Amino acid sequence: MTLVHRTDEIEIVEYSKGAFGKARITVIKEMPLTVFLNRREFVTLLCIANHLKELAVGFLHSEGILNLVDEIESIKLDEEKGVVEIDTHQKNLMAEKLFMKRTITSGCGKGSSFYNVMDALKCKTIDSPIQISALQALNLMRELHRLSQLYKETGGVHNCALAVPDRILIFREDIGRHNAVDKINGECLLQGIKREDKVLLTTGRVTSEILIKAGKMRIPILLSRSAATDLAVSMSQEIGITTVGYVRGDRFTIYTHPERITQ
Amino acid sequence: MTLVHRTDEIEIVEYSKGAFGKARITVIKEMPLTVFLNRREFVTLLCIANHLKELAVGFLHSEGILNLVDEIESIKLDEEKGVVEIDTHQKNLMAEKLFMKRTITSGCGKGSSFYNVMDALKCKTIDSPIQISALQALNLMRELHRLSQLYKETGGVHNCALAVPDRILIFREDIGRHNAVDKINGECLLQGIKREDKVLLTTGRVTSEILIKAGKMRIPILLSRSAATDLAVSMSQEIGITTVGYVRGDRFTIYTHPERITQ
Repeated sequence: MTLVHRTDEIEIVEYSKGAFGKARITVIKEMPLTVFLNRREFVTLLCIANHLKELAVGFLHSEGILNLVDEIESIKLDEEKGVVEIDTHQKNLMAEKLFMKRTITSGCGKGSSFYNVMDALKCKTIDSPIQISALQALNLMRELHRLSQLYKETGGVHNCALAVPDRILIFREDIGRHNAVDKINGECLLQGIKREDKVLLTTGRVTSEILIKAGKMRIPILLSRSAATDLAVSMSQEIGITTVGYVRGDRFTIYTHPERITQ
Repeated sequence: MTLVHRTDEIEIVEYSKGAFGKARITVIKEMPLTVFLNRREFVTLLCIANHLKELAVGFLHSEGILNLVDEIESIKLDEEKGVVEIDTHQKNLMAEKLFMKRTITSGCGKGSSFYNVMDALKCKTIDSPIQISALQALNLMRELHRLSQLYKETGGVHNCALAVPDRILIFREDIGRHNAVDKINGECLLQGIKREDKVLLTTGRVTSEILIKAGKMRIPILLSRSAATDLAVSMSQEIGITTVGYVRGDRFTIYTHPERITQ
């Protein structure tokens, strides 16, 4: 059914052990998705072509433009044109105006109102009693890798998942680690899936922006295959998120709130 | 001299081979850098704390806000506050207004006026006669890794370099692969270093945004340790950039314009 595919085969020149040769390889397809909000062009996201409504909704939520899914009047996706149109019941969103004062990342995504967001997140810390065992954490990360077909084919994506302690519920992949989180968040919002008692997994580094997204989702446990920055660590500490990095093989590093990881 | 350091030591809980223990590790420091353009707050970048003037200038250039360095009247950096103030001679920049129509990435940075940028880049293709040998390409990537102290310590950064065929001239690292490229571009602009006869190296994936940055810099050869997306490949083809991926060990993949890589 989908008009836009996620990978493409192209012809390249390969150099290996001193010799050049022609070969065909699989590359990841990157598409621009333009989000219209109440008939006005709002933003263009560069992403892979799946779960596009969810991506748009998750992005708007994480930016503070949308708070609840029932603020949405309609969502229309034209996948071929790369356009998603979202209309809200209330047409003049204050948050939309504030969005103009932007934060651009580190190298990944953005969080429009960085300082405001932090203030808001700190006001209601996450105190979920959920716990997972060390073995469950290792198994979840192993499962994330097992599911990652597109990464194995192209090397060009980050993976992300929403899980309960003993299994992955939603698996998403994207060129951007931010998009993958937004796709999961959007799916939860549209399907009414609770996030505040779940584990979020990512193959990407944990920077302040990823941490803000997790905080907005009220995620108590965040597992990453990679490192966290000092800012993400201090935000995790304040907001109340258990942030775990370098989950690889039989080891990991608990940056904050270790009480949620049991033996 | 620098007030803000690039790494921090923190206490964490380590899980390894079935046992928990306390340890100290080094994490990368992430700082928000707010760029004021002609006294108006323009954008906040999340980055590591070095080469901040260069980052701001490189970012504004790559976004099309600044074209030439002599448009700049003054640059003032307050590293402690995380603020850089850039004033231009001409105060009402049209590009600044267009910047509001934004593209947000893939998971990495942004390129304000995606379609316009592509149109402009296509108008003047890169036809540099520069060539490098396969061995030079492999050696440059090896050198990039050798220089990458911060990555070895923290795992939290991407590296980028500007090179001539037989050596690296400028090496930069950042949390974001976009910032590392912008730091190099800004340095070239401020120091009057030619970019159109150089090689750009990156550890990060080559997405359309990185390709647009390389195109704006008029870079003829782009070497990456990672994969390129289909969009970056077709843009490389059109603009005239030799894009090479997976430069690892004794092999690499030439996506486009292989005539610049010799035996």
